[in-house]
Order: sequence, then C-alpha cells, then structure tokens
Amino acid sequence: MPTTLDLQDNRPLYYQLSEKLAHAIQTHVFKAGARFPSVRRTAKTYSVSINTVIAAYRHLEDQGFIEARPQSGFYIRNQLPKLEHTLTSHSVSAAPKPNVLRLIDTTFAAQQNPEFTNISLACPTQDSDFYPREKLGKIMTQLLRQQPQLVGSYALPPGSLNLRQQIARRMLDLGIVTDANEVTITHGCVDALHLALRAVTKAGDCVGLESPTYFYLMPLLASMGLTVLEIPTHAETGLSIEAVEMLLEQKRIQAIICMPNLHNPLGCSMPLAAKKRLAQLVNQYEIPLIEDGLYCELQFDQVLPAVKTFDKHGWVMFCSSFTKTLAPDFRIGWISAGRFSQSVQQLKNMLSVAESQLLCETIAQFLAVGGYDHHLRKLRKRYSENMNQAQAIIAQHFPKGTCATKPQGGFVFWVELPGKIDTVELHQQLLKEHICLTPGMLYSPSGRFSNALRISCCYPFNEQYKYALARTGSKACEMTGISAGLN
Amino acid sequence: MPTTLDLQDNRPLYYQLSEKLAHAIQTHVFKAGARFPSVRRTAKTYSVSINTVIAAYRHLEDQGFIEARPQSGFYIRNQLPKLEHTLTSHSVSAAPKPNVLRLIDTTFAAQQNPEFTNISLACPTQDSDFYPREKLGKIMTQLLRQQPQLVGSYALPPGSLNLRQQIARRMLDLGIVTDANEVTITHGCVDALHLALRAVTKAGDCVGLESPTYFYLMPLLASMGLTVLEIPTHAETGLSIEAVEMLLEQKRIQAIICMPNLHNPLGCSMPLAAKKRLAQLVNQYEIPLIEDGLYCELQFDQVLPAVKTFDKHGWVMFCSSFTKTLAPDFRIGWISAGRFSQSVQQLKNMLSVAESQLLCETIAQFLAVGGYDHHLRKLRKRYSENMNQAQAIIAQHFPKGTCATKPQGGFVFWVELPGKIDTVELHQQLLKEHICLTPGMLYSPSGRFSNALRISCCYPFNEQYKYALARTGSKACEMTGISAGLN
Repeated sequence: MPTTLDLQDNRPLYYQLSEKLAHAIQTHVFKAGARFPSVRRTAKTYSVSINTVIAAYRHLEDQGFIEARPQSGFYIRNQLPKLEHTLTSHSVSAAPKPNVLRLIDTTFAAQQNPEFTNISLACPTQDSDFYPREKLGKIMTQLLRQQPQLVGSYALPPGSLNLRQQIARRMLDLGIVTDANEVTITHGCVDALHLALRAVTKAGDCVGLESPTYFYLMPLLASMGLTVLEIPTHAETGLSIEAVEMLLEQKRIQAIICMPNLHNPLGCSMPLAAKKRLAQLVNQYEIPLIEDGLYCELQFDQVLPAVKTFDKHGWVMFCSSFTKTLAPDFRIGWISAGRFSQSVQQLKNMLSVAESQLLCETIAQFLAVGGYDHHLRKLRKRYSENMNQAQAIIAQHFPKGTCATKPQGGFVFWVELPGKIDTVELHQQLLKEHICLTPGMLYSPSGRFSNALRISCCYPFNEQYKYALARTGSKACEMTGISAGLN
Repeated sequence: MPTTLDLQDNRPLYYQLSEKLAHAIQTHVFKAGARFPSVRRTAKTYSVSINTVIAAYRHLEDQGFIEARPQSGFYIRNQLPKLEHTLTSHSVSAAPKPNVLRLIDTTFAAQQNPEFTNISLACPTQDSDFYPREKLGKIMTQLLRQQPQLVGSYALPPGSLNLRQQIARRMLDLGIVTDANEVTITHGCVDALHLALRAVTKAGDCVGLESPTYFYLMPLLASMGLTVLEIPTHAETGLSIEAVEMLLEQKRIQAIICMPNLHNPLGCSMPLAAKKRLAQLVNQYEIPLIEDGLYCELQFDQVLPAVKTFDKHGWVMFCSSFTKTLAPDFRIGWISAGRFSQSVQQLKNMLSVAESQLLCETIAQFLAVGGYDHHLRKLRKRYSENMNQAQAIIAQHFPKGTCATKPQGGFVFWVELPGKIDTVELHQQLLKEHICLTPGMLYSPSGRFSNALRISCCYPFNEQYKYALARTGSKACEMTGISAGLN
C-alpha cells in the first residue's frame, strides 16, 4: 500500500487518507477484528497531521469500516452486512420432521468422527486448551486424596451446598438476587430446561418460543406432547415484545422458553427495556418464563442483565451451566426456579436423583479460588477474536450478499446466504469432503431458514477450520452462481 | 446351656438334642446367620454319636432353624417368619398423594442430616468403605494426568465406547447377549428407566407395574401423564405371570416396568420359568418390557438371569447402574434397549446430552483391570451378613408375628408388622429420635402397606445402626401392644 498521498488530488487530505485505508481494509490488508494502527502512527506513516488522521478515522467509522473501543483504540469492523429481519409468528406442531432428526444424527456422527472438521456445532468435542483443565485436574486430584468418601457416597438434590452458594454469588454479579436454597444443580443446561418445562407444563399445553431456536428444543417439546408457537424474533433484538404481549393477552401460551442474551443460534440479545417489559408481562399474566442463560457469562463487553433480574414474583426460571465456560465434560448446570423451586427439586429427584459431588465440589473450589473471572476474560477475548476472524473469512469467501448477525458475546452467529440455495444440500455436499455444517432448517419446526447456517467459533482457530469455512463459501458460490466477496 | 442330655427322658436322643439346640437358637445364644457348630464338635460337646447329631440337625433343618450350605456346613437361619402373600391387581391413578411426596421429602431431608440414623433408605450418603474409592481415585488421577483433554471436551451419546464394551462383556456373564452399539450410557438407573418410558409411552398410556414398587416410580409416571395398573406381586416369586398374561390378552397395558431380580422393595426374584414366560409374552404381544436390573450383580449365590436373557425380538429394555456396586457418586448407568436403542439415544441427546467421559473412562478402566469381580464378591458377602444380622435384630426386638422377605441378594428387604400399626405414624414418632424409616405406604400408589417397612442394609453395620433398628422394634411393640421376640 503506498504510504504517500497524492498532492495533485483536490479532495481534502483526510478524505484521501480514509479512501486509501478503506481500500486496504477491503483488500484484507488488515484482518477483520484486528487493531487498527494508532492515530499517531498513521500520522507518521503518511506524514500528515494528527487532526487529519482523526478526521479520516471518523469518516471510516461513519462508513462502518472501523470502530472505536474505549481506552483501546480503533478496530477493523466485520465487513459482513448485518442481518436484520423479523419473522411472523405462527403456531406449528412441535413434532420434528423425521429428516430433521436424521440430519441431527448425521451431524452428531460427523462431530464424533476425527476425520471431520466441524464449523457449526457448538460442542467442543475436540482436544482444546480453552478450558482450565490442568487447574481443575489438580483440584480434583486433591479432593480425591483429602475426601475419598466423595466417591463412595452420594448427595441428594438440591446438590452441593458449596457449589450452590458460589452460583448464588455469581448470579448476583449478573444482577440476579437468588439464594442457594432456590438453586438446584442439574446435568447441564438442557437438563435444567427440561426440568423447568416438566415443572410448568403438561401434555397438550402450548409453549411460545423464538424462531430460530436451539435444535433439540422442538423434538424435546414434541416428546412431551407439547405444541409450540413460534414468536417473531428479530435477528438483532431477539423476541418481539409486542408479539409476546399479544399472545399473553389472548391466553394462547401456557409458558415461554427463550434465550434473551446471546441467543442460540442468532447470537442476538434483547435490549434492556424489552427484558424489563418481558419480566413485567410474565409476572402480570402469571405465565412461567424459562430463561436459557447458557452463555450468560460470555459477553464481550459489559454485563448483559438477565430477564430474571427484573422478576418480581418468581415467574422466571433461570437456567445455565458451566459446560460452555469451564468444564464441558462435567456437564454441571443449574436452575434458579423462583416459585417453582420445590417442584423442580422433586422432579430432579425423580428423574435422575443427583449430580456427582466430586465434580460439583471441584467446580465450587475453582470458583472460590481458581481465578474464574480471569479465565472468563481470556475465554471471551478468544471467542471474540475467533468470531471476528470467522466473519472476515466469510466476507471474503462467501457469495456476495451474505449477511450475518454480530453477537455481543458467546461463540455462535447466524449467516444467511443470498440467491437460491438449500443449506441442507450444501451440508450434504460438504460431508463428502469431511466438513460438517448445521443448516438453518434444524432451528425451526416449520422448516424455514433453508438459506441459513449457524456458525460456531468454539474451536481452536486453526488452518483446518479456516479451510473448511472458506471451502463452504466457495461451494456456496458454486451452488448459487454468485461470486465471492463484498459488494 | 447345659451340655448333657437327660437320660431319664424317653424321647429319642436326637430329638432331645434338637430341642436343646432350638432353645439356644431361640434365646439368641447363636446369632442369626452365624455358622452353627460342626457335627463333630456337637457330638463331642454332648457326648453323643455322630449319627445322633446328624439326625438332630436334619430335624432342626426341617423346622427352619438352620440351613445347610454346600461345602460350608450349617448356618443359623433368619428367624423371622417368611412373608408370603399375593396382591390383587387394580388400576389406579399414578398421581401420588401430596402426603406421599411430602413424606419422601422428609425422608430425604433426614437422610442428609448427619444427626439422623437411616435404616431404610438405599442411599449410601454416609462415609463408607464399601466401595473401592482409593482405587477409583488412583485411576482417575492417572487419567487426569495422561488425558487432560477429557475435562475440556465432551462425548455425545451413546457415550464412552470403552465403557459400553465393558458393559456388553459383563452383560454376557448375566446371560444377555448385547452389543456395545445397543448400549446407551445414562445418568444412573433412574435416568435409564425414564428414557425407556419416554421411548415407548405417551401421555394417557397405561403402564403395568409391581406393587409394591420403587417409591419414585409413581410420581415419575404421574408426571408423564401415565396411568398405572398394579400387577399382583408375590413377596417371594414376584410378578404374577398369570396376571400379566391376562392383562396382555385384554390389551389393558401399553408397557410393563418391573424388577424381576432382587426386587426393590421386596427383595424377591422371579423363578426362571416365569422369567422365560414373561419374555415370551411381551415378544408375542409386542409390548415393551422395561427391566430394572439395578441389583443384577448383587446376588449372594448363583447368577440370577435377567428376563432380557430370553428376549428374542428386542422387546425387553434392560436398565442398570454402577451406583449400587462401584461408585455411588458417579451415577453412571446404562440401558440396553433392544429395538428401541435408537429412540433411546435420541432422547438421551435431547434430555441431557452426555455423561462425563472422565467418570465413564474411570469406571471402564476399573472394569478392565481393577478387580471388579473380587470387589463384588466382598460386597455381596458384606450385604449378606448385614441382612442376616438385621433380620436377627428384628426377630429379637420387633413384635411377635413380624414377617420378612428373604432376598437372594441386594441389600433391601421388606418387613410387615402384626396388629394395628401405621408405619407412617411409627416413622413420625421415630423422627423425633433422629431415626429415619421408609414406611410401606411410599411403595404403592393405592396407599396400602400401612403396616410395612422397607429395611436397607447398605450401611456399615455399627452400634448406631443396630440401636436404631432395635429401637424401631421396641417402639412398634409399644404401639401395637404386642411383645417382642419370636412365637
């Protein structure tokens, strides 16, 4: 890139500079998500004044090329167009089509096959140093030595008091005032969601949910004899609060299950005012809200408060887990079930009795003294970087017109492809090359989103992963007949 | 005890000897379950011939005072009258009465309170050296060192292949031919039962079950919207095969759930012919049978074959766990679900995803090289001794006319008290003294068995336990107005 500006050009210096820099960004001289050179450094490089650089940077910022981060300087913005759309609500049978279940099976099978590269599933099944496994191993080894009786006995629900106290403490940081007695330890977040559903629904009930949503939620609801109603969900602001209000008013749903923060698969988070209103509505209509807070501690910047924060009379049941933040193998999660705490504990007893004390105490001790916050900061940074890099690769290799959501945390985002493309077909083509995707169809009971993909960035961002992502793009270009890159 | 026989007595010598020995047994000179003096020694003690002693011992055996064990001599039989009764079948709502759930809660709460002595629950919540915890700890510590990635990743269903292979191998010893691919790892046995029920029933279906049965089964079935039909169950031979045949013929049940070996709470096992017939019937009528094989490896003497052994077309789903034999805390169980294997795996995925690989691999390695069979032999001996001792204490301290079942394995048996007594009331009285029972009412949805108790012997048989058992007897004597001891 030439580092001098053309003095013959009549346009203002700042404008010329911003144009040069924009070109550099568009031709990937800078990686998406990377730090942009400092004002001082650019001034020196181009021999212009500080003020000229500041004006150029503002212009780039207005154009969406870079973004300022407080106390940290400027960064290259992801170059994919933002996905923004709202879906219309309609009631559908929760029963998943057999091909959806088959597709999930195929995907899980590929996931477990070491010959495959997975770029879409959110399961860290590969060897990974994302988690403090050495420290956890040390704590566990020590516990086995000091408290051998942990192996030969078992605790009953609600489960380890130490862990429940630690959880209550951490939930306070998320704005949720809860008590260790209100918390039940579960087998990961899915178990928590299932217990919550069992506590507040019966066969024949209708549950309102986001669309798209977690792919096992529909078969789960169907297996319980529940029907579902897809509530309009905005790719950037989540659940439509107006639609929820209407449905509650018309008494059309007996419960709501949703993910107000860092939604799976969209990655979106509801605005604060919408969360407050949602809490108010479910309390007013006395309809239980099951809040999936799986990624609640994976926000990149400021804390994203839970809907449970604004829950006055215990109608919100907050579910989360350490599976995505600390120890995937342990599958230790929890539920703070408000007014339904006792039913949830009884159900836990009936359905699976207890979780391993050894695993619970290991986590409790890590939370108490292991530097969990430090670990989370590192993990968030890593996911944020992975996501930026993944979006940069998509911007470069996917068909022109591809849009994506821009999550404020977590490690999944949602991509919609232009033109006529069936991502199930794309998935099947790529399976032959040992690349495994999760097509959009998996995420809706009504089978829409045939042009979408969920991308997960919870894997080490290695050459194999990058290749798989780029190859997905080139295959999509081939199938749509649209060339790659940005407009 | 005088060691000479009265020569003035006209009755045969052997008869006089047997009378003396019977008196000694009845006055607890010998402990129930203890070894009886050898023939040679008794001959010497009483200065009678070997033949006289042999005749006396045969007479004692006929009277049920002692029993011969091959290659081992004679042993004092438990002196409690055998419980033998058959219940009549009737259909009841599975919905447990609120007082039953409250009672379970109270019992579990007491169970977790270190101030209480539990003589009825089957949960080893106390410190116990019944399990090879040091060896398991060593294996796990080694795994943490050698395969740290186990903590930072997770396996998907059906779960650890190593463990499934070990399970398939062990099931072969029980006469069950299964394949690692047919086995799904579960969160203990209850999770296996729940998955099996989910795979083969829907709300409104009727499930046939034993009466009495595991106390969480009724609330579990009720929470799934199922109705239940209590099938006549004999205290010694279990499920009435005639009743099952009639119910199947009349198409009155959509599934059966039962425990053909070492039944909880009765302790009984079905005769071989009945098991074969049961397998044949469910295959003929194509009705799924969920076989709870929780204590399948805890038989005292010969192997007790499972109904699954005789399952020709995969209609039997066999469930078990390592919770009661190896590592209570790990809560690792399994299901070999025959023709329903795929549905069960999908359900496992939906409801709780996976079990900890670290725990599974620890168990798999213990099974491969840890001396599991040796451990089981020790454990069975210990439970057998505990059970004999417990029955001896009951014979001595419970009201005259108390009956009990005589299990061939496991660690629970069933006691029925004479006279007018409500064991819930007994339970409540004893809670004040920090002794916790499980009253019979918990084990039937129709609220019968008000005079029964389940006794569990999975605890170290210490003074505290013995006192609690004796105290339960004296309280029962007080409440019934019947004196203690045998008739």
